[in-house]
Amino acid sequence: MKTLLLKKDEVRRLIRMTEVIGAVEEAYKAFSSDQVEQPDYIGIHLPSLRGEIDFKLGYYKVNEIISMKAHSGGFTNNPAEHGVPNSMGTILLFDARNCALICIMDGSLITGLRTGASGAVSVKALARKSARTIASIGSGNQARMQIRAINEIMKIEEIHAWSRTPETLSKYKADIEREFGIPVIAASSKKEAVEQADIVITTTRGKGELVEADWVKPGTHIVAIGTDQRGKQELDPELFRNAKVVVDSIAQCAEKGETWHPLNKNIIAKDDIHGEIGEVLLGWKPGREGDDEITIFDSTGMAIQDNTTASKIYQNAIANNVGTFFQFFE
Amino acid sequence: MKTLLLKKDEVRRLIRMTEVIGAVEEAYKAFSSDQVEQPDYIGIHLPSLRGEIDFKLGYYKVNEIISMKAHSGGFTNNPAEHGVPNSMGTILLFDARNCALICIMDGSLITGLRTGASGAVSVKALARKSARTIASIGSGNQARMQIRAINEIMKIEEIHAWSRTPETLSKYKADIEREFGIPVIAASSKKEAVEQADIVITTTRGKGELVEADWVKPGTHIVAIGTDQRGKQELDPELFRNAKVVVDSIAQCAEKGETWHPLNKNIIAKDDIHGEIGEVLLGWKPGREGDDEITIFDSTGMAIQDNTTASKIYQNAIANNVGTFFQFFE
Repeated sequence: MKTLLLKKDEVRRLIRMTEVIGAVEEAYKAFSSDQVEQPDYIGIHLPSLRGEIDFKLGYYKVNEIISMKAHSGGFTNNPAEHGVPNSMGTILLFDARNCALICIMDGSLITGLRTGASGAVSVKALARKSARTIASIGSGNQARMQIRAINEIMKIEEIHAWSRTPETLSKYKADIEREFGIPVIAASSKKEAVEQADIVITTTRGKGELVEADWVKPGTHIVAIGTDQRGKQELDPELFRNAKVVVDSIAQCAEKGETWHPLNKNIIAKDDIHGEIGEVLLGWKPGREGDDEITIFDSTGMAIQDNTTASKIYQNAIANNVGTFFQFFE
Repeated sequence: MKTLLLKKDEVRRLIRMTEVIGAVEEAYKAFSSDQVEQPDYIGIHLPSLRGEIDFKLGYYKVNEIISMKAHSGGFTNNPAEHGVPNSMGTILLFDARNCALICIMDGSLITGLRTGASGAVSVKALARKSARTIASIGSGNQARMQIRAINEIMKIEEIHAWSRTPETLSKYKADIEREFGIPVIAASSKKEAVEQADIVITTTRGKGELVEADWVKPGTHIVAIGTDQRGKQELDPELFRNAKVVVDSIAQCAEKGETWHPLNKNIIAKDDIHGEIGEVLLGWKPGREGDDEITIFDSTGMAIQDNTTASKIYQNAIANNVGTFFQFFE
């Protein structure tokens, strides 16, 4: 049995953002059409200044691939004390026809890439075609990744960015302007950024710096990325009252996504959720139905996104003879 | 970051059964003294003539190692149709101080080894010191592994073996006599085998071929291996009424081990379980207290056994410069 090993640099070179967007669209459609098994993830929370490690398992019945992603994060002392990043990942791919281990790849990049792509998929499906201006609430890695992905599918004219930390914000502005040539306006408040925007993206840690309902103009599309666990929150739950709410997974978002908050406050009921993005992509449910609608996409992240993205990387590696084969047994 | 890769043959050569027995004793003590985190395992059941793949996660706080074992089984068509075994495994080890992936080893052998060792650990703790004769109910791989392990810790004078399939039984007899020089008597019934024995080991698939209570003589130690899921059963639940019942994990055995059956029939209550084997090994609870006691050890298998066994293999590999280092990133 031969297992293909792929290093981080190889993974980086093996996939383009447009391919990740395609893989994530495929994942959403597969999930909403019952082509996927994704058990609840399991993990370990480490004590004292360390973070956590999670294991996410997904089976995609169409391509017959089982993926397992090990992903750690929050180890703030890692760079200084251990000489390794504070977040690392590894993905195993198994051929579901026989459960042979066909690939082990570094998985540090994939979570960021497929989460970035998820925002772009929602913009394609839900934002106004005339949208040009983005508000970026948050200015970390995922804020950059969202721009990288959305930039592939629309013309971004300007970005109004906000961060709690001025230094992070000026670094974000410099990076985005250099990499994409998109002008970034550093907003002095979240309100100022949101009021300007056709598309609002939230990628904060979700510790309560809420985007208020009053600030959001009609026709805005909101990409809610930062909330994937209870205890995190980025949006005023009142925003959900009159918005079209689309989620990656109803089960997950109602349980621990941004959507949990308005459900918990009885601002909306579960039936008020418009649907899953996969249903919209499949044409089973309408996307945006008017220029004045406020649309919200709640992304909590799913193993099947890792599965289809990593499978694409694996296919590209095989096609281009990239990687190192290792035989764990004869 | 360097990750050590270990092939199946290297794993085989890197560990002796006595070391596995030590690792499993350590695992049991760690588990019963709250040094372990083991979330419920997750898995995928594949359709149509295929088997399943499970993922078992364990964190051992003392050695600061997190292990993840992927283990597939039941793919009966694999050898003929795909040229791979019907059961395969892979183990990942992470340094829990920073969650770096330090080792990926073939895990095909470890489940068999650590399950074999579990029987031997129970024999040391619970069987009569004068025990010499074993009844082996079942004659597959795990039946052999039990003998391999128990042979390390006591003098076995003879084995009375039973199997549903005569061919399997004669192959078992030939293999055991050749490998260990222990005489094997092929029993014509389970009753005949059990009546002769000081120690009874059950390793059938647990589909209802029960060992009856009447057959078991006072002073017998029973090693119940085959039942690790609802729907499996190897022992007459009446056997539990007057026996000293020791389990690997009370939570697991009460839920899906052999012990579930007498609990479900109200033959015993949960309080009648004497304790976990770790508690006996730690000296917190007595082991055997008389030559007439019937003792039962119910083993369902735990991730921490994989953890301590794989950690020992990893340590031996490092000490002996065995294996191949691979850098998933710089």
